[in-house]
Amino acid sequence: MLKTLNIKSSSRTELINITNDIIKIVKDCRVGSGICLLHVPHTTAAITINESADPDVVIDITVKMNEIVSRNSNYRHMEGNSDAHIKSSLFGPSLSLIIEDAKLLLGTWQNIYFCEFDGPRNRNLFIKIIS
Amino acid sequence: MLKTLNIKSSSRTELINITNDIIKIVKDCRVGSGICLLHVPHTTAAITINESADPDVVIDITVKMNEIVSRNSNYRHMEGNSDAHIKSSLFGPSLSLIIEDAKLLLGTWQNIYFCEFDGPRNRNLFIKIIS
Amino acid sequence: MLKTLNIKSSSRTELINITNDIIKIVKDCRVGSGICLLHVPHTTAAITINESADPDVVIDITVKMNEIVSRNSNYRHMEGNSDAHIKSSLFGPSLSLIIEDAKLLLGTWQNIYFCEFDGPRNRNLFIKIIS
Repeated sequence: MLKTLNIKSSSRTELINITNDIIKIVKDCRVGSGICLLHVPHTTAAITINESADPDVVIDITVKMNEIVSRNSNYRHMEGNSDAHIKSSLFGPSLSLIIEDAKLLLGTWQNIYFCEFDGPRNRNLFIKIIS
Repeated sequence: MLKTLNIKSSSRTELINITNDIIKIVKDCRVGSGICLLHVPHTTAAITINESADPDVVIDITVKMNEIVSRNSNYRHMEGNSDAHIKSSLFGPSLSLIIEDAKLLLGTWQNIYFCEFDGPRNRNLFIKIIS
Repeated sequence: MLKTLNIKSSSRTELINITNDIIKIVKDCRVGSGICLLHVPHTTAAITINESADPDVVIDITVKMNEIVSRNSNYRHMEGNSDAHIKSSLFGPSLSLIIEDAKLLLGTWQNIYFCEFDGPRNRNLFIKIIS
């Protein structure tokens, strides 16, 4: 089963919590045991897992990543978004998650984030369920 | 099949070699061909593969990562572990490995490491086998 | 089904576009729906996805990564390639991709790159197809 989730980002750099969307998709597909593969079909975005209890955590992540991979550098690519391409490779475009007892298996503090590194844009996420 | 491995870290930052545990779990499940999905259910830890022949390699990894993602910065999150959350997203919470001929397929120098970034703690790792 | 792709790198640090090889392997295996798991069996190489339309993007990635993870530092490992080991863990040794309608599902700008961080060398990539 393949699903597509549409995501609308509102800033250049932004981590968007999509946990409830993915939990619902997994629940609706009624697969008891398997793998849920998330794939971001973009090269200036990514997917990750982190904490949501304190919203400052994802702000710290975006601020520090902007420091580590500076937006302005001696980049050759002329579109001004080489930093976004690099962050995309560092965080990764895909994530495989466990489905057990017909539910997504996440840790207590784990939430799934779509990582926008060159927004605002309309983005997609593919969700593939394998049982 | 789902298994849980308990891991006890003894330092704040530490790469713990769990290769033999995973090899044994894969062997015991008697799956001839498939995927072994490792999932760390924490947001200040991760999973990676690297060399074990020279134990200095994983020391270099932890020391350099402490330089790249400094522990002290203008972080907003007040628990003092924003660096650990960032490293968790950089290394990633999950890893998919190939099972072939009823064995885990790893390169000669590849070992599997549980990455502790905010220890010492008691941690878990989920192992899902799909055939 | 398990396939091995041989890759020959020609520089120390190099991103090699292997998209067409993987597309062909997926097509030839005639699996309608599933997962294509790519595994790099090395500890100084990795696998990633990024843009190919402008070849400067992957040059920017390699140059900036050489800045972030400097080749010379107070490394303990004596082989002079600790930076390559660190980059291997940051980019990751494996990548799971979606197969849908008997084709690899990639975004318009997405290309698959074998990441050489300690070449030139002869390398392998394992490709496992699960339906």
